[in-house]
Amino acid sequence: MDITEEGWRLQLGANIVPGSGVFFRVWAPKAETVSVRILSNNKKRDIRLGKEDQGYFAGLVEGVCRGDRYVYVLDNMDHYPDPASRFQPEGVQGPSEVIDPDEFLWEDEEWESIALRDFIIYELHVGAFTVDGTFEAIIPHLDSVKELGITAIELMPAAQFPGKRNWGYDGVYPYAPQNNYRGPEGLKRLVNAAHKKGLCVILDVVYNHLGPEGNYLHRYAPYFTDRYKTPWGDAVNFDGPYSDGVRHFFISNALYWISEYHVDALRLDAVHGILDFGSRHFLSELREAVKIHAKRSGKNVFVIAESDLNDVRIINPPGMGGYGLDAQWNDDFHHSLHALLTGERKGYYEDFGKVEHLAKAFREGFVYSGEYSAFRKRRHGSTSMDSPASQFVVFSQSHDQVGNRMLGDRLSQTQSFEKLKLAAGVVFLSPYVPQVFMGEEYAEIAPFHYFIDHSDDALVQAIREGRKKEFASFGWEGDPPDPAALRTFSDSKLAGDLRNQGNHKILFEFYQELIRLRREIASLRTLNKETMEVVSFEEDKVLFLRRWYNGDEAFSLFHFGEDIARIGLIIPEGRWDRILESSSSRWGGDKNYAPEKIDSHGPKVTISCCPHGVVLYRLCRRT
Amino acid sequence: MDITEEGWRLQLGANIVPGSGVFFRVWAPKAETVSVRILSNNKKRDIRLGKEDQGYFAGLVEGVCRGDRYVYVLDNMDHYPDPASRFQPEGVQGPSEVIDPDEFLWEDEEWESIALRDFIIYELHVGAFTVDGTFEAIIPHLDSVKELGITAIELMPAAQFPGKRNWGYDGVYPYAPQNNYRGPEGLKRLVNAAHKKGLCVILDVVYNHLGPEGNYLHRYAPYFTDRYKTPWGDAVNFDGPYSDGVRHFFISNALYWISEYHVDALRLDAVHGILDFGSRHFLSELREAVKIHAKRSGKNVFVIAESDLNDVRIINPPGMGGYGLDAQWNDDFHHSLHALLTGERKGYYEDFGKVEHLAKAFREGFVYSGEYSAFRKRRHGSTSMDSPASQFVVFSQSHDQVGNRMLGDRLSQTQSFEKLKLAAGVVFLSPYVPQVFMGEEYAEIAPFHYFIDHSDDALVQAIREGRKKEFASFGWEGDPPDPAALRTFSDSKLAGDLRNQGNHKILFEFYQELIRLRREIASLRTLNKETMEVVSFEEDKVLFLRRWYNGDEAFSLFHFGEDIARIGLIIPEGRWDRILESSSSRWGGDKNYAPEKIDSHGPKVTISCCPHGVVLYRLCRRT
Repeated sequence: MDITEEGWRLQLGANIVPGSGVFFRVWAPKAETVSVRILSNNKKRDIRLGKEDQGYFAGLVEGVCRGDRYVYVLDNMDHYPDPASRFQPEGVQGPSEVIDPDEFLWEDEEWESIALRDFIIYELHVGAFTVDGTFEAIIPHLDSVKELGITAIELMPAAQFPGKRNWGYDGVYPYAPQNNYRGPEGLKRLVNAAHKKGLCVILDVVYNHLGPEGNYLHRYAPYFTDRYKTPWGDAVNFDGPYSDGVRHFFISNALYWISEYHVDALRLDAVHGILDFGSRHFLSELREAVKIHAKRSGKNVFVIAESDLNDVRIINPPGMGGYGLDAQWNDDFHHSLHALLTGERKGYYEDFGKVEHLAKAFREGFVYSGEYSAFRKRRHGSTSMDSPASQFVVFSQSHDQVGNRMLGDRLSQTQSFEKLKLAAGVVFLSPYVPQVFMGEEYAEIAPFHYFIDHSDDALVQAIREGRKKEFASFGWEGDPPDPAALRTFSDSKLAGDLRNQGNHKILFEFYQELIRLRREIASLRTLNKETMEVVSFEEDKVLFLRRWYNGDEAFSLFHFGEDIARIGLIIPEGRWDRILESSSSRWGGDKNYAPEKIDSHGPKVTISCCPHGVVLYRLCRRT
Repeated sequence: MDITEEGWRLQLGANIVPGSGVFFRVWAPKAETVSVRILSNNKKRDIRLGKEDQGYFAGLVEGVCRGDRYVYVLDNMDHYPDPASRFQPEGVQGPSEVIDPDEFLWEDEEWESIALRDFIIYELHVGAFTVDGTFEAIIPHLDSVKELGITAIELMPAAQFPGKRNWGYDGVYPYAPQNNYRGPEGLKRLVNAAHKKGLCVILDVVYNHLGPEGNYLHRYAPYFTDRYKTPWGDAVNFDGPYSDGVRHFFISNALYWISEYHVDALRLDAVHGILDFGSRHFLSELREAVKIHAKRSGKNVFVIAESDLNDVRIINPPGMGGYGLDAQWNDDFHHSLHALLTGERKGYYEDFGKVEHLAKAFREGFVYSGEYSAFRKRRHGSTSMDSPASQFVVFSQSHDQVGNRMLGDRLSQTQSFEKLKLAAGVVFLSPYVPQVFMGEEYAEIAPFHYFIDHSDDALVQAIREGRKKEFASFGWEGDPPDPAALRTFSDSKLAGDLRNQGNHKILFEFYQELIRLRREIASLRTLNKETMEVVSFEEDKVLFLRRWYNGDEAFSLFHFGEDIARIGLIIPEGRWDRILESSSSRWGGDKNYAPEKIDSHGPKVTISCCPHGVVLYRLCRRT
């Protein structure tokens, strides 16, 4: 089965053949026989599938149509839902449903994704973003997201997981949009609406493991291997015997979201959990398939990795031996910023805390590029000095960085208003692709907890204990909210309406302003590490950033200290206008240390910066 | 500890400080205290070592000198030999001995290794090569090896293993030359003698696992990880917490053999067992350290991998994302040749058997470059089309390919004399670095068995069963010789004297002639896949190979069939001299189907080739 062929369509699962019935195909290399059991109108009938090469079973079944439900029967014994099920109407334990992918009336024919360098990402959790917690319930909020200046929404994983609430990383049907999010129809409506409003859609997909409940893939085939361990148990079998079928399953999944759901980019969860020692890394093959597919369909499609490896091989082009992914999250940027903002030094924050860490993140990308990491107890990372800035996604908060805190506390719950503006300034004035976590832009007060809805009590208990242990490594003691409690989930829903009140409103506008400046000013818009000067003033806790592009020039100061900082700077001669100061009354502050204009005649000017302030100047006239 | 510093010397183990005593250093990051226990003159004294950074313990101890024995005491409890012991006079369970690396009087100051492309390798097992089974006992045989045309001898692993006989892959003291091979002094004498005779020395080193008996490294530090499994148990910890110390230990080992023993090249055992998911692969770091060290000492040093991955990343230069190793064994070449010669199709030979397989091995290197392998049940390999020919070591027999057969049978024991010559022709007329397994060159009749001398009965039993199971996958039934029996080892010793008798003598001279031709004829000497034409005649079971270089031109036919082959060839016009025919009376044959001269006037000439014959023509005059 060639996944790079013209006019690619899903070759697995249940596919309607107009006028004939449904063509089923499933990979079960260890089965002698496979039948599909059709469940419709309270009748059930088993139809034996034919054996194809390489362990696939397939067959056209007449008299089946959209909405019919089915399972596969292996070796005339047990039956399980379809690994490539497009819909699990009754959840992970129920039968699969035949879906007609051509039924939905798309209205985004004109849609074309913007370039990755223009992405301004808004990460959201479908269940917690709205009261209803469905795909469609998001649609009315797209205007507000757009108003903020966002260009791409990113959905946390939406593949069918056990129960009604979950971050999504416990998904077990990678092709089936979550039933209580309202399944395939709901997701298509959301993507369609987003595209009509000019928003890209990024989908978080999980290829490094499957959830612990409702996962029957191992009954079908060697999807997993015990040769490698991941933090989530046995690794997915990407390089052992039968791995071709496993790779095909996941690569098809990527193409499926792109072709049937029109998503513009995939965010690959934790690629460090994709353990492939083979000569052709799965990520490299995945990226190539996506690229060919995108090219054939005339679309821009991006693949963005979450990676804990600090390894540029992930994003390097194939000619340099890389896997060619478009971008990756830069956790080092977050950690540098978070450690400076909060003073936290436990867990992985042990490796951060200096202004110079953040400075290196600005200059290069990875802060750890081969240096010894006390947290990891080994040297870590390769240099990203030569990697284009558009290959890094940066943020001050994310689902992990909030939700994996014991109390799920956002920065807004523990840090001053001034620091929230400072954090935003660092992210949006950086030369990287910025990302916001839902609610961050107006200082949402609801926490974002970790929540699950498993039916296995022992599993729930293990998860509770595992998390408590992890929290201890950060020095957090006490009892975290129970992940399995409904309340833990409902508490995590956005309060929302805050956005129009007091400092919440001001913060939203401050975000808007930063995004507007970034969009309109050439030196801020360009994602270029080469046209940039970064100086760290460790004593003063100030980071100086100067950027230029095509004659345009701007500089910022980010001040992490409690006192007033007076910084002597060498900047090009000329008149500089202050175009943003976070401590000014416009942004809810009452102080204003920085002058509105500077005349630099060289060699040095001194600028004062208020505590936790960010200030931005732009060159208006050279002298 | 910087392993790339000028004038590198071993920083681990016991190092004599002239006039002061001995400086001990050991890595034990989990110990609170470490003492060195000096055992001399029936006295013992414990001296506590100081704690250094990163878990090292070190200290200068007075009154200790060469020949003194010692162990380390961890946390005032158990004591173990030194992981970096230079010598284990009483074997794996005894104390370590202080060795003076400067004591030996080297006589190879003028020695300089030849280029890798000129390597003609002779692989030998120290114990089985001679009656005595010591390093020094090899020396009297170097003349005969040299006479054959060999330029480099390769020693199977010589690091201290349990017992008195072992292939060497169960070594547990990577720095200590085997005691019953006669330790450090013996190995130095061998290298010294080889260099004086103009022979390079390659040492087989094992960095992917340690043997199962006498291994106390895990008592000192997290040398191993249970995150990955290898065929030999837990993997070495190359990428987890504390892996810096593990990497330092093995990289130091490579530099140690080069600097203290003057070895010219290392053969890295089974690099597919070096499981490193970090951003800087161990092999890449190893290669760089060796390169820097070699450059500083003005030597040529090579690193050659054994790899089951068919992954060019191992040998690609760093700029292409490779690890930069100089060369690797090409098992595909062996398997193609072996399957054609023997007709075997079980085990990994399932993937081979066509002339075209061997043709691809000639053209590219790897036969499996992404194709589906029935044996592996997955696609396998990356293309080596662009890899220089000098990066591949090829052979018709090796310790593995003989010794891992149930009866340890060499080709000479199962195949006709004609086929032995054919096999040699394929290897030496190829554009790759050729390798011979001891005794192969004169059709040695002794088998080469797998042998061990462990003291743990359960372990021995497990090994017996493991091997039997593996043999079954090749369709070999019955009882293999007992690996633990002394006789299994003694049977494997070379009979040797055969070399001057009948066909044994002729085969030796045939090997000599092939090596001479390869050395003297420009088109055969060049390791270049680009100046080469390879055509497979599948029906006729003939491989045609034409090579040219700098005006010189030659072609060969390799015939794997039982019948006389008549092959129509298109060759450049001119007069061609037959310079070698394996079936001629000169080489013990009685038939002679090929003409001594060919006048090619185009477009096609027809040449007959005798069964299992190899014939070589050289262009003497163009027309």
